[in-house]
Amino acid sequence: MPFVTRLTERLGIEHPILLAPMDRAADGRLAAAVSHAGGLGLIGGGYGDADWLRLAFPAAGNARVGCGFITWRLAENPELLDLALAHRPAALMLSFGDPAPFADRIKAAGAVLICQVQTVAQARQAVEAGADIIVAQGTEAGGHGASRSTFTLVPEIADGWPDIVLVAAGGVADGRGLAAALALGADGVLVGTRFCAAEESGMHPNARQRILQASGDDTVRSRIFDISRDLDWPAGYTGRVIRNDHSARWLGREDELARSMDEVRPAYARAREDGDFDMAGVHAGEAVGIIRDLPPAGEIVARMIAEAEATIARMATLAR
Amino acid sequence: MPFVTRLTERLGIEHPILLAPMDRAADGRLAAAVSHAGGLGLIGGGYGDADWLRLAFPAAGNARVGCGFITWRLAENPELLDLALAHRPAALMLSFGDPAPFADRIKAAGAVLICQVQTVAQARQAVEAGADIIVAQGTEAGGHGASRSTFTLVPEIADGWPDIVLVAAGGVADGRGLAAALALGADGVLVGTRFCAAEESGMHPNARQRILQASGDDTVRSRIFDISRDLDWPAGYTGRVIRNDHSARWLGREDELARSMDEVRPAYARAREDGDFDMAGVHAGEAVGIIRDLPPAGEIVARMIAEAEATIARMATLAR
Repeated sequence: MPFVTRLTERLGIEHPILLAPMDRAADGRLAAAVSHAGGLGLIGGGYGDADWLRLAFPAAGNARVGCGFITWRLAENPELLDLALAHRPAALMLSFGDPAPFADRIKAAGAVLICQVQTVAQARQAVEAGADIIVAQGTEAGGHGASRSTFTLVPEIADGWPDIVLVAAGGVADGRGLAAALALGADGVLVGTRFCAAEESGMHPNARQRILQASGDDTVRSRIFDISRDLDWPAGYTGRVIRNDHSARWLGREDELARSMDEVRPAYARAREDGDFDMAGVHAGEAVGIIRDLPPAGEIVARMIAEAEATIARMATLAR
Repeated sequence: MPFVTRLTERLGIEHPILLAPMDRAADGRLAAAVSHAGGLGLIGGGYGDADWLRLAFPAAGNARVGCGFITWRLAENPELLDLALAHRPAALMLSFGDPAPFADRIKAAGAVLICQVQTVAQARQAVEAGADIIVAQGTEAGGHGASRSTFTLVPEIADGWPDIVLVAAGGVADGRGLAAALALGADGVLVGTRFCAAEESGMHPNARQRILQASGDDTVRSRIFDISRDLDWPAGYTGRVIRNDHSARWLGREDELARSMDEVRPAYARAREDGDFDMAGVHAGEAVGIIRDLPPAGEIVARMIAEAEATIARMATLAR
């Protein structure tokens, strides 16, 4: 059975599950698979590679998908927004930066504006910018994020803005997580790492294997994988990765790494190209510890719904 | 109606709610109030002040309570365990260190052994030491803790040891949190900050006011309040506090603070004594943002149960 929430109604989807618009991993094929399964796939606009984005939408075929951008990068390449809006996305998601400069164009184009936030202060900013949907992203999320946790950020934003459609992100990888998000006051979930480990994922096969093998204990938030790619993320954001040789070498020595980039830069770029994840970073969330297989995305969606239903039924039997 | 879980059955309590054994805040009066309300109060054995502990148990009157210790401090004062066990506590909780050296004496005394852990690796260690109950504490918790989040730590431990009684801690302050914990696979919750803001709390009134005023955005994990008290916590643990003048002054300058202790030590001690929380630390979790009043502990328990029931009923209506 489907869950009917404010999120499914607002987006006209069957299941309250969104694909996180992850750089490269969330390509057209994966986004289409999530949408075909009844959720909504969001293509990862990532760091703003126009050629990649031009290919991603056609790769989604006739699926109704959306797109997500890293806001501070979009501000450097604002023409990418036109490129994305030309494909008439169902929703446009902005994360990591002030959404206000882009909100009007997105809404005028008929796309639902989704704003991902990491703090209550940012939620206020997003509401004021006209967000239709807020994604509250906890620190347990893979890839970029901040320090507050899903478990407390969701109910505090729900209390602050009871009328906004609210989505939980960070740590959600199965139906227990979906049920917990609904309990905390969310209308649905945005899922990243679990879909990285989908059959259709654009993530490198070697990286997906690391997700299967890792415990949540093995992930860490850091700046070193951004420094290693010359990505100048604003203060307050870090990337959650699975620990590897590169993190063991540089964690706590970020300034020295920055000074060593003449040596590290070419080696790191080569490692990314070669799929050498002893050096290249695998962006992944704490939920890696409950991810153990690589099923099709549609099966991930179906399992999450069935498990959430079973979880709610189990909880109901506890109250006597 | 009560929730019947493996936790309520194992401890013989009505509601699956434990009071976190917080230094000073969780005194005999507060522990008794939580137990009288149907949960289980755990007296904070804290840093091992024998005189304080001698008074705390009588202050609980005839209530059935337990006690909790900071394991690495107990290792420095192991005779405190005898003092606590002499009061025949319903349960003895150990956090922050290897429980193995104390497990046999606790179980031989007839107390239920509760081990609080912050990682999956520590959960394994606790199970091997003979823990009856594991508390999975997420980083959103107030006071001391580590980096993993409640949302992912609970299901990963539940999957690893499905037969152990599991309690979620960190971020739980209302019935939504209790319901979410049950969804994630916990059998109940351990609650700290919400009970700090109870009428019976041993926390200084000025500190409780700060809890009422803070958002979760205002808390931070750091070492500076330990350094300021000469508390030599093992690596990997930090204390979550509400930001204040003292944190603004020293965050990121921990080494300099340590070198400045001749000046800081007396001023900090005086601030603690005077209830000056511009300087003294208020240990509190991210859930401060959903805490807005100072009701009796019994009312907190009753509300959590009623709200969890309502939450589960609401969730059931979403699945159609």
